[in-house]
Amino acid sequence: MNEARVRFREAMSRLGAAVNIITTAGAQGDTGFTASAVCSVTDDPATVLVCMNRASRQHDIFQRAGVLCVNVLAPADEEMAAIFAGQPDLPMPERFARGSWLRLGTGAPVLQSAAAALDCRISQVLEVGSHSVMFGLVQEIHLGAATSGLIYHRRTYHRVVSGQPA
Amino acid sequence: MNEARVRFREAMSRLGAAVNIITTAGAQGDTGFTASAVCSVTDDPATVLVCMNRASRQHDIFQRAGVLCVNVLAPADEEMAAIFAGQPDLPMPERFARGSWLRLGTGAPVLQSAAAALDCRISQVLEVGSHSVMFGLVQEIHLGAATSGLIYHRRTYHRVVSGQPA
Repeated sequence: MNEARVRFREAMSRLGAAVNIITTAGAQGDTGFTASAVCSVTDDPATVLVCMNRASRQHDIFQRAGVLCVNVLAPADEEMAAIFAGQPDLPMPERFARGSWLRLGTGAPVLQSAAAALDCRISQVLEVGSHSVMFGLVQEIHLGAATSGLIYHRRTYHRVVSGQPA
Repeated sequence: MNEARVRFREAMSRLGAAVNIITTAGAQGDTGFTASAVCSVTDDPATVLVCMNRASRQHDIFQRAGVLCVNVLAPADEEMAAIFAGQPDLPMPERFARGSWLRLGTGAPVLQSAAAALDCRISQVLEVGSHSVMFGLVQEIHLGAATSGLIYHRRTYHRVVSGQPA
C-alpha cells in the first residue's frame, strides 16, 4: 500500500464512528454487513446514508432490493458486529440466527436489541470511486431499550455510556 | 415538532459520531462550523463527505471557496467544538483566535491539535432535502499528536481513549 493511502487510513481510524449492521431482504434471503461509514443527512425529509464497496458480493443484492435497515448497535452486540464483518465467515442464515429480528414496512431485518434501527427505502445511489453512497429515506424507526453506543475508533471497539460524559 | 421528527432525532442521537470542525478560507476570511455528519467514503481516491444545512449562513462561502478541511477533534478540544457550534456566538476571528492553526495546500485552516485533519478540494455537491452533501477529495493530511477521540452521542460529549477498549 502506498504512503498516502496508509496516512488516509490512519486518519480515518481516528474518525470514531458508530457501529451498525446494514441489512436487506433479497430474493435469495436476508443479507447484511457491518458498517461504520453511516451518516445522518437531514431530518427534512428524514434521510441517512451508507457507504458500500461496489466490489462487495452483497452490493448488487442491496441495489436490487431497493431497501435497507440501519441497525445502530448497542455495546452488548459487539459480537454481532464481528460476525457481520465476516469474522468468523459464517453463511448468512447462521449470522442472522445469532440475533432476534423483527420486520417493519420494508421487510429488511431489524435487530431487536439495536439502540436504534432505521427502516429505509433507498432513494438515491451515488457512485464515488470504489464505493456506492446509498441514501436511505426513513420509513419507520425502531428504538431499542439500550441507549448506550458501540463506537469503532483506531481499529478497536469502545462503548459510550449515557450519563458518563467526557 | 411532529412525532416522526422527534423519533428520528432520538434515533440519530444514538448514532454516535466523531466531532469535527469544518473550515474554509473564503474571500471574507476564515470560517468554520462544528459537524458530526462526516463520513469516510472511499480510499480510492481518498474521499470524505460532510453534510451541511443549506440554510446556514456559511453554506455559500464553502460553495464559493471550493475547498474545506475536516479537523477531527481530540478530547482536549471539546471547548473548541462548542465555540464553533456557536456557543457562545463569537465573531469568526475570535473563534479562530482560540486555537493554533496551520495551512496546507488548499489554504483552509488546519487545527494543529486535531487528531487528524483532511485538507480537501470539494469534488462534488449533492443536494438532499434541506442539506448539501459535500464530497471532499483529500489533498493532504495532518496527523496530530493526540490519538484519542471526541465523540458526540445522545447530545453529550464523550472521549474514546486508545488502549481502553469496550
